[in-house]
Amino acid sequence: MQTNLIETLTNQLSLSLGVELEASGRHVHLSKEDVTALFGPHAALTPVRPLSQPGQFVCAQRVTLEGPKGTISNVVVLGPERPHTQVELSLTDGVALGIRPPVRLSGDVAGTPGITLRYGDRSVKLSHGVIAAKRHIHLTPADARRLGVENGEEVRLACLTSRPLTFGGVEVRVSPDYRSFAHLDYDEANACGFQKGDRAILLPG
Amino acid sequence: MQTNLIETLTNQLSLSLGVELEASGRHVHLSKEDVTALFGPHAALTPVRPLSQPGQFVCAQRVTLEGPKGTISNVVVLGPERPHTQVELSLTDGVALGIRPPVRLSGDVAGTPGITLRYGDRSVKLSHGVIAAKRHIHLTPADARRLGVENGEEVRLACLTSRPLTFGGVEVRVSPDYRSFAHLDYDEANACGFQKGDRAILLPG
Repeated sequence: MQTNLIETLTNQLSLSLGVELEASGRHVHLSKEDVTALFGPHAALTPVRPLSQPGQFVCAQRVTLEGPKGTISNVVVLGPERPHTQVELSLTDGVALGIRPPVRLSGDVAGTPGITLRYGDRSVKLSHGVIAAKRHIHLTPADARRLGVENGEEVRLACLTSRPLTFGGVEVRVSPDYRSFAHLDYDEANACGFQKGDRAILLPG
Repeated sequence: MQTNLIETLTNQLSLSLGVELEASGRHVHLSKEDVTALFGPHAALTPVRPLSQPGQFVCAQRVTLEGPKGTISNVVVLGPERPHTQVELSLTDGVALGIRPPVRLSGDVAGTPGITLRYGDRSVKLSHGVIAAKRHIHLTPADARRLGVENGEEVRLACLTSRPLTFGGVEVRVSPDYRSFAHLDYDEANACGFQKGDRAILLPG
């Protein structure tokens, strides 16, 4: 009886104070220039499936990552094109490739390591652009108001998952262009035992 | 000034209320029977390096894990021999092999998936024994008293690491045969940005 009550309250809390979790696998964002360099002068990114964030999509294109210690093939390209090419890995992937990606928010690539992207005979050697994505929460302005948080704020995220844990230093990003989801990488998703549909509660940072 | 004070207090807290973290990579424990089956009738495990827990050691022997979807080679064997063979993987490893290891404490292998161990031409097909190690804390009786916790209790573990987070459901194990260390797998270690020497503070579960 009491367990059911606690479960019911927790579920209600997670709906009113929480956000759905998503896990992001390793992926690549490409500049227009690098799309051309890898796939040819007339190539364009080919959408195959939308992502949770409006306008973002999984592409048909895949590339191989070549690091100093190893390679990872079949890495998905996400669209649309971006001003700068960026590679997002887990720290586990970094070990396999022989690269130590710093933990950064998307777009913050100054001083980060480089890597080689390959598609068949074509390759692009990046001087920088490899990061481990810093965990973050996309929120609509309405959800940010509901949760009492602001763009740029850091919060803790208590995951209602099979290996429960509370992530610290989770950055809140608010935009009318977002759908509300918290994003983890696969190291983080596995550490908390994430399964699709799991939610988490925001706590003060 | 205030930052320094907070840092000093946190360091003191971690020494008085904390424990050192260690990350455990994928590994195999072998029964005497399986040592013979893999390495030959006169083989014995060859210690090359002691582990933090007294009597436990890294062996010269390595095996390949063969799962339904992939293989992982060069997996370390830990000694001494145990009554039952057991394979400890991260959930990330499980994805590569095509196996879903349940999160269990060491030794709790009833109903877990099997796998094939290979060494050259020799192999052992396990019907069960693959787990993802449940995070846990080894404590000496003196440290358990100091920290106010008992064998079998679950606590939270606030990691003072580069990607700070607080693990829930961390089981305390107390024995005079232990040295005090908290054990994470590599998914968990990467999720918190663990580096050798990092510590964590125990909090009520």
